[in-house]
Amino acid sequence: MSSPLRLGIAGLGTVGVGVIRIVQNQAELLSARTGRDITISAVCARSQKDRSVDLSGYAWEDDAVALATRDDVDVYVELMGGENGPAKASIEAAIAAGKHVVTANKALLAHYGQSVAEAAEAAGVAVRYEAAVAGGIPVIKSLTEGLAANRIERVIGVMNGTCNYILTRMEDAGLSYDEAFAEADGLGYLEADPNLDVGGIDAGHKLSILSAIAFGTQVDFDGVELEGIGNVTIEDIRNAADMGYKIKLLGVAQMTGRGLEQRMSPCLVPATSPLGQLVGGTNMVVLEGDAVGQIVLRGAGAGEGPTASAVMGDVCDIARGLMMPTFGQPATTLRRAPSARAAVPAPYYIRLNLLDKPGAMGKVASALGDAGVSIHRMRQHDHEEGTYAPVVIVTHKITRQALDQAIEGFAATGVVDGTPIALRIERV
Amino acid sequence: MSSPLRLGIAGLGTVGVGVIRIVQNQAELLSARTGRDITISAVCARSQKDRSVDLSGYAWEDDAVALATRDDVDVYVELMGGENGPAKASIEAAIAAGKHVVTANKALLAHYGQSVAEAAEAAGVAVRYEAAVAGGIPVIKSLTEGLAANRIERVIGVMNGTCNYILTRMEDAGLSYDEAFAEADGLGYLEADPNLDVGGIDAGHKLSILSAIAFGTQVDFDGVELEGIGNVTIEDIRNAADMGYKIKLLGVAQMTGRGLEQRMSPCLVPATSPLGQLVGGTNMVVLEGDAVGQIVLRGAGAGEGPTASAVMGDVCDIARGLMMPTFGQPATTLRRAPSARAAVPAPYYIRLNLLDKPGAMGKVASALGDAGVSIHRMRQHDHEEGTYAPVVIVTHKITRQALDQAIEGFAATGVVDGTPIALRIERV
Repeated sequence: MSSPLRLGIAGLGTVGVGVIRIVQNQAELLSARTGRDITISAVCARSQKDRSVDLSGYAWEDDAVALATRDDVDVYVELMGGENGPAKASIEAAIAAGKHVVTANKALLAHYGQSVAEAAEAAGVAVRYEAAVAGGIPVIKSLTEGLAANRIERVIGVMNGTCNYILTRMEDAGLSYDEAFAEADGLGYLEADPNLDVGGIDAGHKLSILSAIAFGTQVDFDGVELEGIGNVTIEDIRNAADMGYKIKLLGVAQMTGRGLEQRMSPCLVPATSPLGQLVGGTNMVVLEGDAVGQIVLRGAGAGEGPTASAVMGDVCDIARGLMMPTFGQPATTLRRAPSARAAVPAPYYIRLNLLDKPGAMGKVASALGDAGVSIHRMRQHDHEEGTYAPVVIVTHKITRQALDQAIEGFAATGVVDGTPIALRIERV
Repeated sequence: MSSPLRLGIAGLGTVGVGVIRIVQNQAELLSARTGRDITISAVCARSQKDRSVDLSGYAWEDDAVALATRDDVDVYVELMGGENGPAKASIEAAIAAGKHVVTANKALLAHYGQSVAEAAEAAGVAVRYEAAVAGGIPVIKSLTEGLAANRIERVIGVMNGTCNYILTRMEDAGLSYDEAFAEADGLGYLEADPNLDVGGIDAGHKLSILSAIAFGTQVDFDGVELEGIGNVTIEDIRNAADMGYKIKLLGVAQMTGRGLEQRMSPCLVPATSPLGQLVGGTNMVVLEGDAVGQIVLRGAGAGEGPTASAVMGDVCDIARGLMMPTFGQPATTLRRAPSARAAVPAPYYIRLNLLDKPGAMGKVASALGDAGVSIHRMRQHDHEEGTYAPVVIVTHKITRQALDQAIEGFAATGVVDGTPIALRIERV
């Protein structure tokens, strides 16, 4: 048997503790499967408070950089999070010191993935991050390795369990967005900055990482068109359900003739599709390749066990000697793709509040016509006379440009109150 | 860039042609991702008939062993199938000659997996077989690598698309088993020996391979309790639907206190579960690990593209230098586990034909009581007086032994016609 693989773990929150538990409880299984003992040399966290695992066998470091560069550390496991600060400094130090890196840090990879990958490949070390995307689901591995012989056509996914929980609770329990948000908050599901979840940022980070692997491009988080779920109402969810759809915070990435399209936004998907059937905090990623067709992967997107499973899967890969460029091909060969905003036409769901005046509907229809948008169906809901009437329109397939033009046109009619809601209906 | 990785491909059916297409059409992508050119040195098939791909650049061998041992072959790709004959001889010859092997041959691995793995590990070569289980779904990779840090608790799956097609058509179109079978046959979905499909053998092969990886045991196909779908009637499917279930040919493997339980049999699963929602020829594998929880993988289980994608994924792994024991841990450390027949209790669905005589139902109820089987629900269907009445019973959780005893008891009542159908209701 080879020498032990020695870990240094920075960050002892839920995931860090989960990783330590696996190392301690599954030692025999890990060494049978990898041919090496996996041990922990040292740990590091913000405070030495009591945790539910025994840390007495490990050296303590106050400083993550010091931990990452210890002589008795072969793999630096970064579980602190945050795109800058100690996470970035310690990962860079680890690579410079010739250590492999395993991290769950999606924000860091979304912002600095390219430079981290270049440094790692120059140093001949692995940077692995299965836990950064969709928790325990082996999606990075499936995409980078299992589907390596495919030209990837599209990546779609529900990658933020908190948003899916909120949308599911709105539908199932008839809660308003604010009520469902408060419930999720009470359950501890939200990040310290909730906008990371409900604003789509966290899921956008994940999508940008998957895009880089799928399309051989440099990670481009700034190219992700982001829209959160805060404007989705219970009425939208009910209208969608009436038409056979569910509303999901959906990530979509595809290479188009005009560039790389990356979107993270609330979309309508068929209620009977695997994505439509996904309820609660579960994640799902759909990978479409030219040879393999459609592969659907589903599982827990967060939590101690699932995330620690992903971290330790990466550690096992390193123990087994698997080495691969960070994003599946050498970082120096990753292209910069121009970002294409919603280049692929789609039908849209539009909800607007119409002033209850004679001729109002005609003005809206004209605005649509002027923008070249044809109507698939349109419904005006019951309302009290003289108030605003909620109108729901489903368009035929249109470009985003045509949609934007129509929405500008609505503003000019003088009969539409506030900003209309427009949600893409995604083919899945 | 390293030297090219040179393939020798035996078997030029659908999958072999698909593999050649990928090598020819995706050369640039493959070399970007693996850091090596992937080339084909030679091919071999039963006949030199015209195929839809250009073979002119490749040497032709009539004999698979000769192909497998050629000096200009680094990886032997076996796509002929069959558990014995040329497939076995050529794989053994390839390993002896120090070649890596990629195969889609589930029957061979189910029967000779242990000896193949031992030979490969002694020779220091890789044997990879993602295409052998669930087509394009990266399930072998997910289980062996992605979930390597998990104690696997259960593997469940729908792994024969043809059976799922037949069962789906019976339900959706109200076809009898024979009609749906004929339809599948007409579409070319059935193996030359259809019992491989509808008898559960093909799916059983796959389950036995997954079991070995999941539980660190020697492949034991003989230990798989096999039951085909031939006795499932449209009435069973309708009865199941009335109670909120679907009938699937379901593979289940789990380690119990009494040994390894492996079953491939028609089961009832909740209609709203991912497995229950699976229609048509699609495959689904559910992996349950102590840390990761439940991971669901879904995709095409057969066909040129998906299967070739899996074969080439393995080839890419080899090109990237990934080396791992065949079943995830050294073959010499795989245990022989005793096989445990349905060790885990479950509720059962029972359908029997009851003679329409006073006291008949009482006799059946007594037989159940004598076997210690308690009834969750029971329903006698409409029938003409004096004929056999179809009776459906759903039991509480019982052992397989209790079920067998009850069924023996039915025979002694003299009021039950023929052999009752008993289908397990699986928790998924």
